[in-house]
Formats: sequence, structure tokens, C-alpha cells
Amino acid sequence: MPQADRFLRACRREAVDATPVWLMRQAGRYMAEYRALRERYSILELIKNPDLAAEVTLQPIKAFNLDAAIIFADILPPLEGMGLSLEFVKGDGPVIGNALRTAADVAALTVRPPEETLSFTLEAIRLVQAELGGRVPLIGFSGAPFTLASYAIEGGSSRNYVIAKSMMYSQPQVWHSLMDKLAEVVGAYLRAQAAAGAQALQLFDSWVGALSPADYRAYVLPYSKKAIEIAKSGSHVPLIHFGTGTSGMLPLIKEAGGDVIGVDWRIDLAAAWQQLGDDVAVQGNLDPVVLFAPLPEIQKQAARILDSVKGKPGHIFNLGHGILQHTPVEHVAALIDFVHEHTRKG
Amino acid sequence: MPQADRFLRACRREAVDATPVWLMRQAGRYMAEYRALRERYSILELIKNPDLAAEVTLQPIKAFNLDAAIIFADILPPLEGMGLSLEFVKGDGPVIGNALRTAADVAALTVRPPEETLSFTLEAIRLVQAELGGRVPLIGFSGAPFTLASYAIEGGSSRNYVIAKSMMYSQPQVWHSLMDKLAEVVGAYLRAQAAAGAQALQLFDSWVGALSPADYRAYVLPYSKKAIEIAKSGSHVPLIHFGTGTSGMLPLIKEAGGDVIGVDWRIDLAAAWQQLGDDVAVQGNLDPVVLFAPLPEIQKQAARILDSVKGKPGHIFNLGHGILQHTPVEHVAALIDFVHEHTRKG
Repeated sequence: MPQADRFLRACRREAVDATPVWLMRQAGRYMAEYRALRERYSILELIKNPDLAAEVTLQPIKAFNLDAAIIFADILPPLEGMGLSLEFVKGDGPVIGNALRTAADVAALTVRPPEETLSFTLEAIRLVQAELGGRVPLIGFSGAPFTLASYAIEGGSSRNYVIAKSMMYSQPQVWHSLMDKLAEVVGAYLRAQAAAGAQALQLFDSWVGALSPADYRAYVLPYSKKAIEIAKSGSHVPLIHFGTGTSGMLPLIKEAGGDVIGVDWRIDLAAAWQQLGDDVAVQGNLDPVVLFAPLPEIQKQAARILDSVKGKPGHIFNLGHGILQHTPVEHVAALIDFVHEHTRKG
Repeated sequence: MPQADRFLRACRREAVDATPVWLMRQAGRYMAEYRALRERYSILELIKNPDLAAEVTLQPIKAFNLDAAIIFADILPPLEGMGLSLEFVKGDGPVIGNALRTAADVAALTVRPPEETLSFTLEAIRLVQAELGGRVPLIGFSGAPFTLASYAIEGGSSRNYVIAKSMMYSQPQVWHSLMDKLAEVVGAYLRAQAAAGAQALQLFDSWVGALSPADYRAYVLPYSKKAIEIAKSGSHVPLIHFGTGTSGMLPLIKEAGGDVIGVDWRIDLAAAWQQLGDDVAVQGNLDPVVLFAPLPEIQKQAARILDSVKGKPGHIFNLGHGILQHTPVEHVAALIDFVHEHTRKG
């Protein structure tokens, strides 16, 4: 079986020669090649220059035996395209200068085609595909409506999401109007990435675990569902639906949509899959901190995950969240090789 | 039924006249009375002066119709008693000056009786009991071994627990030795609080949701279990075992022990109880941010939780984590009254 097929076959729950593996944030600060570029360019410069974004995307593909590439981008540029100002402030992370607070703020947000607002990422996808030449598939991605709304309202990262949830509870019409716009923007952006050549898509609802299942159902699920429906309306690309802290609401994440459900490390993968049912594939779920452990511990933990779902097609190995800064590069290489060796057939 | 019985009867899964309610961090910065004291005293001064600690403990009991008091203290002073230095730094939270990194650091930790190291809290319990005169029961508490270990190793709050988990994976013998000492200190501290008059105990494993179920079982569960066994060895006080982010490992939390399992808002309470089984009581689980919502939304969400477990004895209403700063005091009062009115029998 060509390596190019392994990841996409697993997304469709078809048999594979070895379990495919890629790692969230596989292009990033733990790699010296990435840090060298970051000395010369800001994150947004890397994202908005298609040549640089393509180069960063390919760095981990050249360094490791990964089964998929993921386009180098960030979840927040779609907010810029809607009229919000985005900056990355050292130490503070992303900052939205004109955070949303009122009905008028939300009404002023524009919904424009991604070809106008996010063309740099679409162009980067085309460049990467030309470079990859079919060696491994390329994943496109977007932040999900809730995670984008939380940044847009809070103005940055948040511990308790008091401002975002307060809009949800106190101004529900404003909230629903915002989420509807975000669903359209996210859906169209994902669809455009598939049209530009991405062979799979991932919806990142990174902070959705801040919600109770009841609030997720009432205030979020319909919009993630809408975004996923739009994303998949133009093609047959598989979609991975990922969130952290979702152990208590996995069936709702599935109800919102996705061919593959991404799971963090706070639940046993086999137990998560049992809750989800056999009609979806799963992705996960090694604790990213395990990559700081000695190799035998890394291998033991990876083997536990792989063995727990052995013999059932449709597992994509990944971390439970993004690779952390300072992760030893040689451990990343060893993990990827171990996943293949441990699961290789015949 | 006297109000004094409601909470303890629910801990034992006996019928009650109305669902009992108390709120984690019910004495705190959202109350003007507390802020007034904090202008004159630091947190540690309030905790270490038994008269002041008793006064703070009683502030919410005087203001609201709560069914239990909880002694005003903090989870970290037991670390001071073992030889670590503890400070609360404005903006940064707790800081441990001499954080644990090596086998020698852990070997140097002392295990001394709580009557020597934490007598201020034991004395505060006696003072509060004299003041309460049996009106409502008093809960004693301690941080759990993992949560204390994470502060002791990281030196303060942490996002990813890389240093703590790295000790777990890379120096397992040092980790196990530390956890064993913490289990002894925590267990003895809880037992001493019961001996001083606390009629219930809560073990706070606030950050245990950072762990995978497999790591919880291997590195944490035996020590929470040991602490709980020591805590309950001298009396029949019910013990509440609470953590956040535990939706994926509730049966393991139960296996470690506790008469009542405290659940955060990231899972439906009825679903959590089903996983746990009918032989434990449950506590929870309103999202603390809901208290910022308009009253009808607060009541709707509280009713949803109460109705979902209606007719099954053994529910103690609480938030899914501590009350947040800036929570409107009148919403707290209204929530407590609503819980009683909505569930009152006859």
C-alpha cells in the first residue's frame, strides 16, 4: 500500500498496512528549522506569505515519516477577514483589539468569500500540493465557531470565558447571530481549502470543553453542524472534528458532524470510541507531555493506545492536543516510527 | 426535618425535605464582607488567625440560606508544614519558592502531625462549631496528593504540568515517594479536622483532569485512596471526593474512595451518576459562570440539573468548581433559595 493512501483510508475506516500518524502543531517551535524562520518573521508574516507557509508546512514532512501534512496557518485569521483586528503579543498570545461586546459590533461583522480574505492560505495549499507530489495527503483546517467566538468576544485567551458565556446567556440573539456568521465563514473557508487541494479537513474546537453538554447543544452544536455541512457540500473530503475536554459530550460532538472524531487524552480511546459508535473513525490520543518522557515510557503509552483499538479499522494516531514547545525532536521521530513498526502488518 | 440534617443525610443517600446546597469557595472575593477583611489582611493571615478564619467561614452562612459551612482555609498550607515556602503573589497566585525537583528535595520533606503544622485550621474549626451551635454542619477539606504535588513541583499554577508529569515519567521512584508522603499528610490532616469537629470532609483534586485515566491509575489513585483511608480511619464522617475535568475517569475517582463524588459541569449529572453507580452520592454541577446570567437562565439551568436526578436520594447541589470573583451576590442568594423551593417536599 502506498504511504499516500494510509491516512485517507483510515479516515474512511478502511484497512491499512500500518496505523497512520500525524501530530497537531507538527510544524512549530520545537523544530530548529521553524525557530530559525521565526527569528526573521512573525507568525502572521509566515502565515500570510504563501511561500513561507508552504516551507513551514513541509518542514516536519522532510524531518519525519509522517502520514499527512497539515497546512501551516492559524485558527484566527478568519476573524480578521470579518473586520476584527488581530495581533500576536509576545507572552500574551493572540489579542483582538476590537473585541465584540454589542449587537452593533456583531452586525458590523462582514461575511466575505475566503478567496478574498484568506487567499494566502489557499495559495499555500496549492504550493504545498505541487511540492508534495502526492507523497502524503494535505489537511486543511479552521477554528470552529465556538472557539472563534470565544476569542472574538474575550479579546484573547481566557481562563473562564465569563464574557463569552455572558453574551450567550444575556444576549442570546446577539450570540446566535454571531455564531451563524461564524458558521458561514468557517464552512466556506474549509470548502475553499478542499477546492484548493486539501484532501482532508480538520475543525478545531479547541476550547469547547469549557461548556456544559446542555449549553453545547443549545448554543454551539447547530453552528458547528452548519459549518461542517457547508465544508463538505462541494466534495467528498473527510472531515476530522476535534475538541479538548469533550469526554462528557462525545455523542454531541459526533452529532454535529465529522467522519473522524478527534479525542484528547482525558479518556481512554477505546472507551471514547465505544461511546461514539463504529460509524466514525477516531483520532488520538497521547498526552503531549508524554513526549518529554524517556523513550520506553513513550513507547509503552503509545502501545497501550494502539493495542486498545487494535483490529478495528479507522484509527489515526495523534496527540490529544498540539505538540508543546521544547518537546525533544528525537522523541517525535521515535514516536512516529514506533507507531508504524508496532502496527505494521505482514 | 431540621436544616442541620439535610446535608449529612444526603451524603448518606437518605431522603431529605429539600436538596441541600453549598457552594465551593462560598467565602470569598465576591462578598463585600470578605473584601473588607482582605483590605487589612493577606490570605495567609486570614487562614492562620483562627478568629479571622472563623469569621470568614461564617460570612456566607449569615448572608445566605446555605445547608453547610466549609472551613476557610487553602489547599496549600500542608506544603508549608512539610518544609516548602508558600507565598501568594498578586496576579500570579501561589508561589512555592523552593519547588521540588530532585530525590534529595523529596527526601528532605518532613511528615509532621497536623496538630503541629496546621493547628490554626483545627482551632478555627473548633471556633466555628461553637458559633454555629449545630445550625448547619461544617465541612473540613484538604487538597489531594496530585494537586498538591503539582504545585510543589511546578512551583505554582501550571498550564500543561510538564515539570510535574516529567518527574512522574522520568523519576518514578521520586514521584511515588513524594505521593506517599503527601498521602500521609493529607490523610492525617483530614482525620484531625474531623476530630476537631468537622462533620464532613472534602478532598479537592482540582487539577487531576490534566491526567489520562491510565496515568491517574498508575501514579495517583493509590495515594488518593491511602489519604481517604487515613482520613476516615478515626470516625464515620462522610467524605466528598471532588475533581474537575474527570468526565473520562469517574469510575477511577470512585475507586479511590469517597461517599460523595463531586462532578464539574462538563458532563450531565445524571450521566455521571449512572457511570458512578447508585452506591455513592453526587455533588454538583452548575457551571460557575451561569451565576453571571440573568435570573431566569440561572433558574432554568439549576432546574435542569435538579430534575435530571429527581427522586434519587443522595444529590448535593453545588457549582462544578468554585464561585468566581465578581459573581453577583444577589444571584448567589437567589440560586440557593431556588434549589430549596424547587425541591421542597410536602
